[in-house]
Amino acid sequence: MVDRHGAIGVFDSGVGGLTVVRQIEARLPTESIIYLGDTARVPYGTKSPETVVRYAKACAQLLLERDIKMLVVACNTASAFALDALRDDLDIPVLGVIEPGAQAAVRATRTGRVGVIGTAGTIRSERYREALQCQDPSITVFSQACPLFVPLTEEGWTTGDVPKTVAEAYLAPLLENNIDTLVLGCTHYPLLKEVIAQAVGEAVTLVDSADETALVVQESLEALKLCCETPLLPQFRFLVSDAPSDFEQVGQRFLGHVMQEAEWVNL
Amino acid sequence: MVDRHGAIGVFDSGVGGLTVVRQIEARLPTESIIYLGDTARVPYGTKSPETVVRYAKACAQLLLERDIKMLVVACNTASAFALDALRDDLDIPVLGVIEPGAQAAVRATRTGRVGVIGTAGTIRSERYREALQCQDPSITVFSQACPLFVPLTEEGWTTGDVPKTVAEAYLAPLLENNIDTLVLGCTHYPLLKEVIAQAVGEAVTLVDSADETALVVQESLEALKLCCETPLLPQFRFLVSDAPSDFEQVGQRFLGHVMQEAEWVNL
Repeated sequence: MVDRHGAIGVFDSGVGGLTVVRQIEARLPTESIIYLGDTARVPYGTKSPETVVRYAKACAQLLLERDIKMLVVACNTASAFALDALRDDLDIPVLGVIEPGAQAAVRATRTGRVGVIGTAGTIRSERYREALQCQDPSITVFSQACPLFVPLTEEGWTTGDVPKTVAEAYLAPLLENNIDTLVLGCTHYPLLKEVIAQAVGEAVTLVDSADETALVVQESLEALKLCCETPLLPQFRFLVSDAPSDFEQVGQRFLGHVMQEAEWVNL
Repeated sequence: MVDRHGAIGVFDSGVGGLTVVRQIEARLPTESIIYLGDTARVPYGTKSPETVVRYAKACAQLLLERDIKMLVVACNTASAFALDALRDDLDIPVLGVIEPGAQAAVRATRTGRVGVIGTAGTIRSERYREALQCQDPSITVFSQACPLFVPLTEEGWTTGDVPKTVAEAYLAPLLENNIDTLVLGCTHYPLLKEVIAQAVGEAVTLVDSADETALVVQESLEALKLCCETPLLPQFRFLVSDAPSDFEQVGQRFLGHVMQEAEWVNL
């Protein structure tokens, strides 16, 4: 029996998933959240499916031990490779970020020409293509892996010549294909939104799955009658597998406000 | 009692340490080598000292179980943070890459103005500064962390505008300080040697610790009477914690020749 007063568990390979936490906080201010950033093993996006599944299961297990009522996989690479395995293993609802992002893109596109950027793993998995074309088979999908975007955001190098040159190199092939919508298929990428927007121009709509994922979290909690009813003070906890101090410093940029002290966990 | 017919154990966070293996092979063609690349948890250079020590100890333990006669820490970040801990724990000789690199730089410099580039962890540790000034207190050291260089080399993005822009951004402050020697303080960086050489110009000598480390390995084996005497066919084994196929593909660029099949290990 799942306890509706339990927290929502959210994990990502690093800090990127905090962009999803930020949107869940905004939509569901009475819900408690436990966030796990696997910062010792970040990034996931360059690793093989087997390794990502192994690490995602370890993250889920650690959060389950804290009695979460729902698991949000706030990492596109882990959603691409591990969502099915986690749903098979777990008795609580498990949500990813790819289907919500695809839904938002289908709503946004006018021409049906949709670009998707993500980690090498996410793009290779073809999960965005499947999710987009499952919702609208007439959509044409153009994909591009952008492996340097995660290290750029983790470094905080989000303005200036370097991110501009990197973004232009990655995005040129998508622009040649006349996309009108671009899915930011990695929870790190919203921090590069300005650079990406400049590179693609005003005619291309950027879709960020964080807000759409928070909406799906809300709808699922309501449908499953798992919303926290009594207006208790919500609890926020942040767990990390590398040094907490680095995470707190970088994490505030992603979360948009000062963060509670993070706790180290052994992963 | 250490067996002189045992292999030399070498580990790195990923493929970079293969540049050291390449030089050991060239100097010591009768020696067997077991290489471990912790590719599931790469990079180490952005992680905290505590995490790097924990991971380095796990790598060393795994190689010890294969009866190595010497351990080479072919990763600057692990050498910076974990060498002392590994020497305390292990009964076999343990060599790092920082002291050999510093020795080569001291020999190379004419003006005593030495630049060092490395991961965030290596630079923060100040170990190169200590090693350089321990050998020659008159040397002035200028350091620069280059966190994007590892993802660039792991991606194979070693030519063109992007690595050029990144290298120029990182190296400009060092050039302003009129260095005449630059230590490539990360085993990944030799793959960016051309881009780095262009950015710093002909007047700056690049020092790569791989060859110097291989020389120290040779001298240490001789001094300790641990050289393999009988000219048996040397054995080469490659162990990795992420998918072997990706490692083999990228690894050949670092090793300089076709590589034996790699074996997956659980880390």
